[in-house]
Amino acid sequence: MTTLFETELREQPSVLARLLREGRGPAEAVAKRIRERQVRFAVLAARGSSDNAARYGQYVFGVHNGLVAALATPSVFTHYGATPSLADSLVIGISQSGQSPDIVEVLRAGRAQGAFTLALTNEPDSPLAKTAEAVLPLLADKERAVAATKTYTAQVLAVAMVSAALAGEERLWLDLAGVPDLAQTAIATNLPNASAAEALRDHSRLVVVGRGYNLSTAFEITLKVKETTGVMADGYSSADFLHGPKAILDRHLPVLAVAPGPRVFDDLDGLVRLTRDNGAPLIAISDRAEVLSQADIALPLPAMPEWLSPIVAVMPGQIFALGLSLARGMQPDAPPGLSKVTHTR
Amino acid sequence: MTTLFETELREQPSVLARLLREGRGPAEAVAKRIRERQVRFAVLAARGSSDNAARYGQYVFGVHNGLVAALATPSVFTHYGATPSLADSLVIGISQSGQSPDIVEVLRAGRAQGAFTLALTNEPDSPLAKTAEAVLPLLADKERAVAATKTYTAQVLAVAMVSAALAGEERLWLDLAGVPDLAQTAIATNLPNASAAEALRDHSRLVVVGRGYNLSTAFEITLKVKETTGVMADGYSSADFLHGPKAILDRHLPVLAVAPGPRVFDDLDGLVRLTRDNGAPLIAISDRAEVLSQADIALPLPAMPEWLSPIVAVMPGQIFALGLSLARGMQPDAPPGLSKVTHTR
Repeated sequence: MTTLFETELREQPSVLARLLREGRGPAEAVAKRIRERQVRFAVLAARGSSDNAARYGQYVFGVHNGLVAALATPSVFTHYGATPSLADSLVIGISQSGQSPDIVEVLRAGRAQGAFTLALTNEPDSPLAKTAEAVLPLLADKERAVAATKTYTAQVLAVAMVSAALAGEERLWLDLAGVPDLAQTAIATNLPNASAAEALRDHSRLVVVGRGYNLSTAFEITLKVKETTGVMADGYSSADFLHGPKAILDRHLPVLAVAPGPRVFDDLDGLVRLTRDNGAPLIAISDRAEVLSQADIALPLPAMPEWLSPIVAVMPGQIFALGLSLARGMQPDAPPGLSKVTHTR
Repeated sequence: MTTLFETELREQPSVLARLLREGRGPAEAVAKRIRERQVRFAVLAARGSSDNAARYGQYVFGVHNGLVAALATPSVFTHYGATPSLADSLVIGISQSGQSPDIVEVLRAGRAQGAFTLALTNEPDSPLAKTAEAVLPLLADKERAVAATKTYTAQVLAVAMVSAALAGEERLWLDLAGVPDLAQTAIATNLPNASAAEALRDHSRLVVVGRGYNLSTAFEITLKVKETTGVMADGYSSADFLHGPKAILDRHLPVLAVAPGPRVFDDLDGLVRLTRDNGAPLIAISDRAEVLSQADIALPLPAMPEWLSPIVAVMPGQIFALGLSLARGMQPDAPPGLSKVTHTR
């Protein structure tokens, strides 16, 4: 029996293609309105998977748009009743359901101060959408598995499209046009091999490392693994990992490295070698032969522009989580104790 | 034999008292210079323990100073060669050693754009200090254990002092004056009980949850536990935890709740109850009897103003890490594979 999680995971290429096709016009219209304001920085409000899409935004807005992007701290608004100055900012709320009251509150505060507020959500009638000045729907159809797949990659793509529209560079849209096919390739290559994760069935811990754009990917893979397998997966920037957490490494602790090319991060490659030298299980998501060849479980990627690789590189991670979930006798569609919509304040 | 880690942990009340005594004048002078600029947001650049002090800054600058504070993404500057707009910002670099090239680069880029750049460091002759427009030394004397204790709490205090000086409210300085005695009480109460951590000797995983101001504390405790014990400790906002990671909870997974009063977070108290109901080991850092009474290991705090509680609430966590390290036959002063100064790019 195919799970909802797998079905929705497989839908990603078509969801991404639809968002690219129908979402470019609206994204460019929103970008035009943003350019008319004095936007000096961005604030991204999100929780869970959506917060990983926000983390991608920190990099893409920084690199392509010269904008510092802060991840919001919603409790400053909700619990401490403070109103940090948002007047000169672009405030983006990211939420599949558009329901979480704390995220809505950050948007409300931003709009009240005259910030440009934008909702990226799969529910265009949600409280988040109604609070924001502009909405870009994810157009991903209903997502039924608790663990997000297609809405996550649609969120990352939506962030990338807003960035491209703000930058106004046609070459970025050319890059974007290739994403659905690359996603299809990544899924077709890795899904038949999902059961390779069985080798890690008896491990209760997993470290996932990435860097730069793909820090978001590392964090999202840890969340998928936690949600669908119960394994305690912990995600890191490979730079942060060297500033302390590295002390937990031993030969019993598997490491998953998210290391797509073409860029090489020395600290990330160093961690790959260290894992190998420790004799710990190594899982690698990469298009680089020298990384894949060292891995016990190699999850290959097609080559692609680095700035878009987070949309595709997460997919082998989703498939790995699926395989591990089934190998552990879990039901990936219904993580214990979770529901699809979470209300936090 | 007393370890360096314990010795430096015990020095914290006097280090904090010295920083308060000698640092107020310089902090107020820096605040005066910051107020003369058009500061619209803050950017905090740090790694490791210092990044947890930066996380505290996100809350205290938001609540007391109306400033959105972004945690910097150094690779945007170093690997992607981009220069996000920092002209209207306050850029603070936080680093015990002042050495890490990526943090120095963020300050250099800020200063080149006319941002006000401030270094909080224990090494006033370091590259970070030389790059910044202003420096507030931590005055913590040399720290020799690899895992930071006194330089971490001095960093958090320094951030709190900058915030108080910017706010210009005398009541905040009255709150601050109480911190060294509160720290002394927290240490004197908990250190004799460090061996209580022995009960968790055979666990290889630990979840640490906090919220608001004490999210920083939760993250810093996970880092201390990782560095000194090799246990995989993972830190969360209790709100984020409900958006997915909650699925990993079971009766074998200990939970440490950082829940000082007087503020009550419903999601955090709910996690305390859930841990209790699951039959999993519960460790609690709190001054609230209803939380401590549910814990297997109760780490009591004195009552204090919430905004300063991160400086003190981390100390029972440091002591817990020390006790667990010794119980596991580790050497807390020399974590495997780590050195005191880490150079990342």
